[in-house]
Amino acid sequence: MVRVVVDVMPKPEILDPQGKAVHGALPRLGFSGVVDVRQGKRFELELEGEATEDRLAEVHQMAETLLSNPVIENYAVTVVE
Amino acid sequence: MVRVVVDVMPKPEILDPQGKAVHGALPRLGFSGVVDVRQGKRFELELEGEATEDRLAEVHQMAETLLSNPVIENYAVTVVE
Repeated sequence: MVRVVVDVMPKPEILDPQGKAVHGALPRLGFSGVVDVRQGKRFELELEGEATEDRLAEVHQMAETLLSNPVIENYAVTVVE
Repeated sequence: MVRVVVDVMPKPEILDPQGKAVHGALPRLGFSGVVDVRQGKRFELELEGEATEDRLAEVHQMAETLLSNPVIENYAVTVVE
């Protein structure tokens, strides 16, 4: 069993209204010194077998077709343990 | 400038309908061998100054009060670079 994490974040040039909302709320809650906030998604996948090259290529395909929108988001795949 | 990542995931004992929906969609898209999917949130914060203990304690407070719901979610704080 392998655990793989796919992090999906809005591209830097894309507006991120969720991140902006969090950023705007921080001073109202008394927090200062935060210059920017970006909000994205984190997927934890548990896969059968080993983290072979083929399995990871498949995870990249999942990330491109289902987990992210490549027009507005970047993703990163990380194998955990 | 410091970049800090806050990962927020549903607690293991909590139902995760978003993760279940992704998990259910994978076989329909031709992907097999995925045992479980959990979906959470990823926040990237850019902070002024250095990652001192005080700053990180503040980030933990942000995570507890604004970024996560401690009743149903766990969070993890990671300093990047």
